[in-house]
Amino acid sequence: MPPFPIITLLTDFGTCDAYVGTMKGVIAGIAPGCLMVDLTHEVPRQATAVAAMLLGDALPFFPPGTIHLVVVDPGVGSARRAIAVETGAAVAVGPDNGCLTPAIDGAIRVVEIRDARLFRSPVSATFQGRDLFAPVAAHIARGTPVAALGPEIADPLRAALAAPHAEEGALIGEVAHVDRFGNLITTVRVVDLAGWPGVEVEVAGVKARGLAGSYHDGAGEAGASGGAAGVPRVRALIGSAGRLEIALPDGSAAELLGAGRGARIVVRKHEHD
Amino acid sequence: MPPFPIITLLTDFGTCDAYVGTMKGVIAGIAPGCLMVDLTHEVPRQATAVAAMLLGDALPFFPPGTIHLVVVDPGVGSARRAIAVETGAAVAVGPDNGCLTPAIDGAIRVVEIRDARLFRSPVSATFQGRDLFAPVAAHIARGTPVAALGPEIADPLRAALAAPHAEEGALIGEVAHVDRFGNLITTVRVVDLAGWPGVEVEVAGVKARGLAGSYHDGAGEAGASGGAAGVPRVRALIGSAGRLEIALPDGSAAELLGAGRGARIVVRKHEHD
Amino acid sequence: MPPFPIITLLTDFGTCDAYVGTMKGVIAGIAPGCLMVDLTHEVPRQATAVAAMLLGDALPFFPPGTIHLVVVDPGVGSARRAIAVETGAAVAVGPDNGCLTPAIDGAIRVVEIRDARLFRSPVSATFQGRDLFAPVAAHIARGTPVAALGPEIADPLRAALAAPHAEEGALIGEVAHVDRFGNLITTVRVVDLAGWPGVEVEVAGVKARGLAGSYHDGAGEAGASGGAAGVPRVRALIGSAGRLEIALPDGSAAELLGAGRGARIVVRKHEHD
Repeated sequence: MPPFPIITLLTDFGTCDAYVGTMKGVIAGIAPGCLMVDLTHEVPRQATAVAAMLLGDALPFFPPGTIHLVVVDPGVGSARRAIAVETGAAVAVGPDNGCLTPAIDGAIRVVEIRDARLFRSPVSATFQGRDLFAPVAAHIARGTPVAALGPEIADPLRAALAAPHAEEGALIGEVAHVDRFGNLITTVRVVDLAGWPGVEVEVAGVKARGLAGSYHDGAGEAGASGGAAGVPRVRALIGSAGRLEIALPDGSAAELLGAGRGARIVVRKHEHD
Repeated sequence: MPPFPIITLLTDFGTCDAYVGTMKGVIAGIAPGCLMVDLTHEVPRQATAVAAMLLGDALPFFPPGTIHLVVVDPGVGSARRAIAVETGAAVAVGPDNGCLTPAIDGAIRVVEIRDARLFRSPVSATFQGRDLFAPVAAHIARGTPVAALGPEIADPLRAALAAPHAEEGALIGEVAHVDRFGNLITTVRVVDLAGWPGVEVEVAGVKARGLAGSYHDGAGEAGASGGAAGVPRVRALIGSAGRLEIALPDGSAAELLGAGRGARIVVRKHEHD
Repeated sequence: MPPFPIITLLTDFGTCDAYVGTMKGVIAGIAPGCLMVDLTHEVPRQATAVAAMLLGDALPFFPPGTIHLVVVDPGVGSARRAIAVETGAAVAVGPDNGCLTPAIDGAIRVVEIRDARLFRSPVSATFQGRDLFAPVAAHIARGTPVAALGPEIADPLRAALAAPHAEEGALIGEVAHVDRFGNLITTVRVVDLAGWPGVEVEVAGVKARGLAGSYHDGAGEAGASGGAAGVPRVRALIGSAGRLEIALPDGSAAELLGAGRGARIVVRKHEHD
């Protein structure tokens, strides 16, 4: 095993209970010397598509060989499959419900995890993060090849976070996530806007023109739609993960606009003023 | 010292302050190379019995030699003793107020920690987690034997989380903890129900019959008591730590039932339908 | 590099997003084997002075050679400088906005970070924690000297947490932070009270006489101001970081008094009764 294999953990378990700590105990017992890194445990309950987005945004920033353990598992105890996904650079382990989508998109191999010798026994019907996913991730960290975990599958599920679609020349997306600062992180990515001369972004009745370079750059500020007195300082920009964001410097755009996860975003072409 | 000794941390300090991080700094200064694992820092304030329950549920999942540091310490600065508990498989360190009960139940040795040469000096009267418990845990990780910390004691305190009791053929317990999903984790354990033909669980006026196999298994669903229109989908099951839980798939049982820590649970025998 | 260099992380990012985890991925890719310790990620948004206070309170408890990474960065994307501060015992890295003040106070060298070869490329205008500060901290952990990061500067900013001032024989301070227990941590330090015969502390119209030795010591309890029926048990004491605190044993002083960050504290000399 490499000197310091990394296992990341991404769950909807929260941190009020000892669930995450217990998974780490299981991992440390199998693969001592691992570095365990929490991505977040505050994924909205059972929101597999949000988990997939957070995983995708974090993936490029971890070194080769990192193992990503994702347990957002509304179907725990049902017949849903457990899978491991191997890309050229990483392995992702979790339930087959779409939460591993970004890894699947770059996969060279997806297997159904079936080798029960790697599990804790018995496997709880309510906490497979502890009894199945954590030990499998630890065994991979110790060198078990993904191909040895079970048969390859061709039909892993992908998550339902809708890609933006075109409508009358505009791009329609939605708010995927609200971060701690109240920034609205959207499903629209910078690549979706390639070649656009400029943009006008509308959310919750407010329009922002242009893209600010940062939270403190005056461009991309909003005027109120319909010419009203204005909702100053809300601005659109491309955030650190390449997603269109709506932000309010020194405040919460989510609160000001009353907009949250699922809110509709309309992006229209707009020539630079 | 073993290559990667593990120290877990379980407190009621929360994570808004740097208290936990500061304890880790102290540990790292004494025992570099330790793996520190957070169980949780969100134990309800001064709830020693909840800390004991969370510790007990996590203990079996850590490798031999793990050191568990528990600082839920309403009596900090008073004359309460500081203790270390050695079991065959682990060591637990904390105040003598019951928070270490599960380790005490399996102890081969309990000592009062008195060797002040191991403490930071001076010892704060308000933060002995940093000045006493963290350095002692770190010294144990480095090889100091528990027996060297101070004299053995025979009367460590146990926590007051009431065991369920029998009443007119029923078992009366209570909600010990509400987890992030709103599941009601109770003081009734699977061993308390050994030999029962089947169960009916009542909480907050709602009855659930049978035990579901998982959160998604139809068994164990509740009908409203008194024949009312029904509170569908609340169900009883045995959770991952062997405790009776009341859960609402895709929702919060705690919220739906208006029931929290301390709520009364009645378990009656019930033949399978 | 030392066997287990420590990098602490102190931000206002919260833990609902994967921002902190992503920074750790970047660090682990550059400096595998580092021990990363979270101080807290719940600094109130953009509160550089609170970050400075928390950093200062934690600094003395980390071993020599620790690297402290502070990202509370309201000016991200603006022209504010990025700096590294070397003291005899530690290095601190962060934006030049006062959040590193306690390190600056003991600095032997402060440099502006300019060597872009150490950054991720391109550097995001909204998340320099990930692209600039984390990689620089990791390179320092691997042995890059602070002096190699850029030119020395003589005018780093200090944070605006007001020092207490004298007024008619009293010392006027304020509440700097409310901890998880509802304790009011103030800007008044034990050194500010050196030589005082005794104190009376007033906050939110309530006066506490004397300093309790601990949360459970009867001294330092408050009587209501003006001779009213009393607000028993609120007490003043010197907390674990050497700051004057107002605490309510078994309760929240902040809630009882309706006092939070910024509340005025008056400390008057008072002979022992």
